[in-house]
Amino acid sequence: MKAWKNNPLALVEKNNTIAVISHVEPDGDSLGSLLGLGLALKKICGSVYIFINDDFPQKYKFLPGYKYITTYDNSHNMDFDFCFVLDCGDLQRLGYSQSILSRSQNTVNVDHHISNTEFGSINILQSDASSTCEIIYDLLEDFQLQLDVDIATCLYIGLATDTGNFVYDNTTAKTFRVAADLMNYNINLNDISYNLYQNKSINNIRFLGHILKHMEISSNGKIAMIMITNNLLEEYNVTINEIDSVINYARDIKGVEIAVMLKEIEGNQVKAGFRSKQEANVSTLAQKFGGGGHKKASGATIKGNVKEAREKIEKQIRIDLGW
Amino acid sequence: MKAWKNNPLALVEKNNTIAVISHVEPDGDSLGSLLGLGLALKKICGSVYIFINDDFPQKYKFLPGYKYITTYDNSHNMDFDFCFVLDCGDLQRLGYSQSILSRSQNTVNVDHHISNTEFGSINILQSDASSTCEIIYDLLEDFQLQLDVDIATCLYIGLATDTGNFVYDNTTAKTFRVAADLMNYNINLNDISYNLYQNKSINNIRFLGHILKHMEISSNGKIAMIMITNNLLEEYNVTINEIDSVINYARDIKGVEIAVMLKEIEGNQVKAGFRSKQEANVSTLAQKFGGGGHKKASGATIKGNVKEAREKIEKQIRIDLGW
Repeated sequence: MKAWKNNPLALVEKNNTIAVISHVEPDGDSLGSLLGLGLALKKICGSVYIFINDDFPQKYKFLPGYKYITTYDNSHNMDFDFCFVLDCGDLQRLGYSQSILSRSQNTVNVDHHISNTEFGSINILQSDASSTCEIIYDLLEDFQLQLDVDIATCLYIGLATDTGNFVYDNTTAKTFRVAADLMNYNINLNDISYNLYQNKSINNIRFLGHILKHMEISSNGKIAMIMITNNLLEEYNVTINEIDSVINYARDIKGVEIAVMLKEIEGNQVKAGFRSKQEANVSTLAQKFGGGGHKKASGATIKGNVKEAREKIEKQIRIDLGW
Repeated sequence: MKAWKNNPLALVEKNNTIAVISHVEPDGDSLGSLLGLGLALKKICGSVYIFINDDFPQKYKFLPGYKYITTYDNSHNMDFDFCFVLDCGDLQRLGYSQSILSRSQNTVNVDHHISNTEFGSINILQSDASSTCEIIYDLLEDFQLQLDVDIATCLYIGLATDTGNFVYDNTTAKTFRVAADLMNYNINLNDISYNLYQNKSINNIRFLGHILKHMEISSNGKIAMIMITNNLLEEYNVTINEIDSVINYARDIKGVEIAVMLKEIEGNQVKAGFRSKQEANVSTLAQKFGGGGHKKASGATIKGNVKEAREKIEKQIRIDLGW
């Protein structure tokens, strides 16, 4: 466990008003850390507000404490003693929630992204942590706050989802040790597995079948390309949020080094997701298109239709990597 | 850690000759425990033989110590002081290796199957262990044998594969704690993940696509049925061993309670695999066809062609569960 000289939880007072926020396009780690820390803070003080400004993803609605999540509205004229910003590398990723910061005395920035811009008045940054939930576990343990099954479940979700369920190389001995500790709070792994992995719609599965049959392999098998048009989504009656993980199937093919998923979005633009398997750096690739991310997972928005975006990407890879 | 009154490793002497064997149709836990214990025993005594009598599955050939595995041949006329039988519920599951037992002074039966028939002269049975590898980790730790990266890697493979990579409900706090300890021996999780999950042939992926598009859902969405003919395997140029995990996709569909995978085998027979998600007991179902297994994963061999087998199974489920 990391020893904290200045655990921000020690600064929180019983009569404080606190906001807990995270990045747009919520995922398992942002929601797990929002709710894990949010529920813990509720044990310390009375006025804790957990805000998200997107739709809450259907698949995470089983998370304990879900009912405490609200939408922030500037017209509420609320002021906060502390705003905890979780799992968010920079202020732009906060979207609308960014406006909360100007109404907060202190901004506590808790994150594991190596690119974090240290925008907080207090910054708790650990790029070797698997997930923000892993850092929050440390903070709570250091503060000797008694966890319960709900908090433990939320934190476990962050660990599990940000590591590809303990597959990606951000998984460490520490990650497994934290998972073991969380299991001791009687979290229901059966229920979690069911909700995360065993509850896929048949439309989703049929769509995946289509994608796997039709994805294109190029550059001597090193690039796998998935192209998704709105027509295809309509044909299978699925939404883009449900099928994000499809790109992992492309990456996991023998010989594939870079997987690309292209999705039509409004305004003659394409949202591109990139995954790399071993050596290729897709963070650099995404940056060429004005995007960003991690070495092995990144994204960008590209002008044009799916076919044009594909050509631009293949050309860029040819230039950068000679494939 | 379990405290062992009679750790069988303490009985092994330096000049002993030892066999280590496991069940037919090897999987990650049988191979991981064979090699994990085999490599450890080699540190105690000189003559350790690790036998399997099937082809070694291609996907596990990255396992450390793979080169030590040999095939047992009765004509060798070898005698053994100890035969360690790993991850094997009953003697029939040993196949040809069973003949080794009559040439062994002591049979040490190490297993986590609840149905284990206690066939050993020494029985180390822990049905609450995630995997046989988890039990072997305990035995080695209790014996204070210094693990190394190779042993740790083998044991990790058993933990990971028998728990569906820490998803199934045999995963416990203990399982995570053992995984954390194994990580401390510098096992290469990136390499393991690559070999287990990120190295699928494109044929395999195209085949999966076909299966997902065409699997049949019946009984108000509670049964998902996958039917695999030899023609289909030929069309996609895949072998049946490569695509066993396809059944999990069927189980993981929302509303599906029982997944069935039927595969044509020789002699006008069908090999049926069963998976259940929550309450249904597919061990009972498999027994109706002369097969067996766990509550949530079982199998049987059924007379007839794929279509006939399907009808028999649906009829049986109708009788047993009223679906």
